[in-house]
Amino acid sequence: MSDDLKNRLSDAVDTAFDRQIAFLSELTSHPSTRGNEQSAQEFMAGELAARGYEIDRWQIDIDEIRHLPGFSPVLGPYEDAVNVVGIHRGRGENGRSLILNGHIDVVPTGPLDMWDSPPFEPRVDEGWLYGRGGGDMKAGLASNLFALDALTACGLVPAADVFFQSVVEEECTGNGALACLARGYTADAALIPEPFAEHVVTAQLGVLWFQVHLKGLPTHVAYAGTGSNAIEAAIPLISALHEMEHRWNAAENRPADYAHMDHALNLNIGRIEGGDWTSSVPAWCVFDVRMGLFPGQSIDDAKAEIEQVIMEAARENAFLRNSLPEIVYHGFHAEGYALSQDGSARAADAISALERAHHGITGDALEREAITATTDARFFGLYADTPALVYGPRAEAIHGFNERVELESMRRVTKATALFIADWCGTEKV
Amino acid sequence: MSDDLKNRLSDAVDTAFDRQIAFLSELTSHPSTRGNEQSAQEFMAGELAARGYEIDRWQIDIDEIRHLPGFSPVLGPYEDAVNVVGIHRGRGENGRSLILNGHIDVVPTGPLDMWDSPPFEPRVDEGWLYGRGGGDMKAGLASNLFALDALTACGLVPAADVFFQSVVEEECTGNGALACLARGYTADAALIPEPFAEHVVTAQLGVLWFQVHLKGLPTHVAYAGTGSNAIEAAIPLISALHEMEHRWNAAENRPADYAHMDHALNLNIGRIEGGDWTSSVPAWCVFDVRMGLFPGQSIDDAKAEIEQVIMEAARENAFLRNSLPEIVYHGFHAEGYALSQDGSARAADAISALERAHHGITGDALEREAITATTDARFFGLYADTPALVYGPRAEAIHGFNERVELESMRRVTKATALFIADWCGTEKV
Repeated sequence: MSDDLKNRLSDAVDTAFDRQIAFLSELTSHPSTRGNEQSAQEFMAGELAARGYEIDRWQIDIDEIRHLPGFSPVLGPYEDAVNVVGIHRGRGENGRSLILNGHIDVVPTGPLDMWDSPPFEPRVDEGWLYGRGGGDMKAGLASNLFALDALTACGLVPAADVFFQSVVEEECTGNGALACLARGYTADAALIPEPFAEHVVTAQLGVLWFQVHLKGLPTHVAYAGTGSNAIEAAIPLISALHEMEHRWNAAENRPADYAHMDHALNLNIGRIEGGDWTSSVPAWCVFDVRMGLFPGQSIDDAKAEIEQVIMEAARENAFLRNSLPEIVYHGFHAEGYALSQDGSARAADAISALERAHHGITGDALEREAITATTDARFFGLYADTPALVYGPRAEAIHGFNERVELESMRRVTKATALFIADWCGTEKV
Repeated sequence: MSDDLKNRLSDAVDTAFDRQIAFLSELTSHPSTRGNEQSAQEFMAGELAARGYEIDRWQIDIDEIRHLPGFSPVLGPYEDAVNVVGIHRGRGENGRSLILNGHIDVVPTGPLDMWDSPPFEPRVDEGWLYGRGGGDMKAGLASNLFALDALTACGLVPAADVFFQSVVEEECTGNGALACLARGYTADAALIPEPFAEHVVTAQLGVLWFQVHLKGLPTHVAYAGTGSNAIEAAIPLISALHEMEHRWNAAENRPADYAHMDHALNLNIGRIEGGDWTSSVPAWCVFDVRMGLFPGQSIDDAKAEIEQVIMEAARENAFLRNSLPEIVYHGFHAEGYALSQDGSARAADAISALERAHHGITGDALEREAITATTDARFFGLYADTPALVYGPRAEAIHGFNERVELESMRRVTKATALFIADWCGTEKV
């Protein structure tokens, strides 16, 4: 790529950057937690349509994806789960096609009083934008869109097909990205600007979600000895799960990407609910668990071991023995994925192109990172033979309070993305 | 009392017993959980009015009771908390006045699928009536009412004032009974037919309710090591509370009524709730605790020790140390009460009268029992110098699934109550 084009693209991002911040701010103001993504998707579709992209917008049909590898079970209907794709058709025949992917869903805020300012009233302070979803990953959606805008501002369009995906369900199943795949969207590479501090993600973990339902005979607390407390019965099961977590993290189980991490796989008790009345011995308790898996670890084997661990612990408990827990899978059946293990020329080319773009903007070498979370990259990498580059801005406290994203980092990523698109897809005149 | 009157009262109860079962069944069909007592109270007021009792019906005003001994704190308003009292004025001057007390509120059902039949669609099967609240304590309310009816059927009324109380809030604070006291209702004795198998309760425990609120900084589970799990932080606090429970139950701390019980004081974790999202480290957790106290144990000392135990355990926890729990008192501040310790002649007279009535109907001696729960008896005994007799039918699984009350036991208690009223209050012609 010529220095001239690089400079023009960079300048175009700078010129539009105030508008990009305003866009990010408006997008972040939509409280697009699971089930509530509609207004944010409406906004995205409007912005894409205004730029002339062809819009594909559809409700996820679970029957079209449930048989596919990578599908995660869900509780409840998908009537409110709508994906948006903006389509650019390249006229040329030499460019490589690209998927620019980002998720619109955000995780819940938690108690509002722990935020310094309302999570869906984004504010900019000393170079950071604060708000739920600002970092994870609406800044990435903004970066994808304004990178394409920079080409437009230079009188250029990608010389290949580009599919701009705004998907739901990344935070619980990935079925939004899977539905895009099922709908036929494939490309030569995918870029997902998840907020990992301008590093390229070379490996990501798998994730399993499950609920443990405990139920038993309660009684008046006056006779607590004859009843059984379903809440306290959860405690030995949680201990047993942590012992399993410890085993899975043992050095001999770690693949190369995670060899240096003592505790890559985190087991999280994310929710708990049980009992109805302070003076009734609780008859029921449900707790939600998230467990990480290494790339290469089988989902089925992991589930079998989890079930065994829970049932063994339950059988040692006088109460649970007679009323064994029910395990319900209510989300992620996500396999791990390692771009580092993709030996294809296309993967090498894609990484090289991103390295050039990153270096072209920052002057620094692109750092590689194995992350301890999952992303939608697995669908492209594992089930569509498409190298998926996860590369996005620096954010902090994602899933936490006062989540924030660094605006200068978003600027650099937007510029690098524009360069990457121009390099990977090639350009042609508008 | 003449054998003739005894037989006539007994026959009158038998004659009306089908109607009494129908009454109990209808009363049990009202789902009078806390906040939903209105329709049941409406029914009670209607039944009392139809019998000619003067009706006093009022909304509890927290400002009229909050300064009184025995008051328990509540979260939220009392707009829906209505007491009903039916009043009989005795014409004579020699009879002793009596409060017939029962509570209309019932505890939640828990998961409906654990009931063999719907909890608010009572059914009779092999001599038992099944349904939430049937035993605790709508059979007692029925017994009080139909005992008075038996006198009426014999052309008699009590020769002293009788106050028939149908109160709310017994299951969480006792503020319903306290509001009756604050409104001026006092008498020479009180009878409360709580379902303790036709025994007279000679001692009852105190009960404290509190919530422990944990809160802290969460994060994405990918970085679980840097966050802190508010749900798991509850576990060492629960352990510490159980150690306290163990100490309080030690032999040297037991009063005479409980000397023979290894574990009269039960600590119950009755509810728990925490976290918002499976893949977010939970920022908050709240658990509800019920703890028993011995009669004579100071509420203030108990609270101080509970707070100390929780804070000491919290300070040993890396996360909680920086974000100490909040303890919220959301219900019972109930002191223990021992009728056995009431050395007054009136108490002795009341117990004797109940013994005669019980023996007169059953042919058996009245058994005495120290119970491991609380009842509204404490308000009469501790704060109004009124001996309170807790004596009611046999029930099972109160606060549990398939709660049931034995109908023949209700019949016997109704008869004994009629005899007791006639004996204690004396009778005069209608």
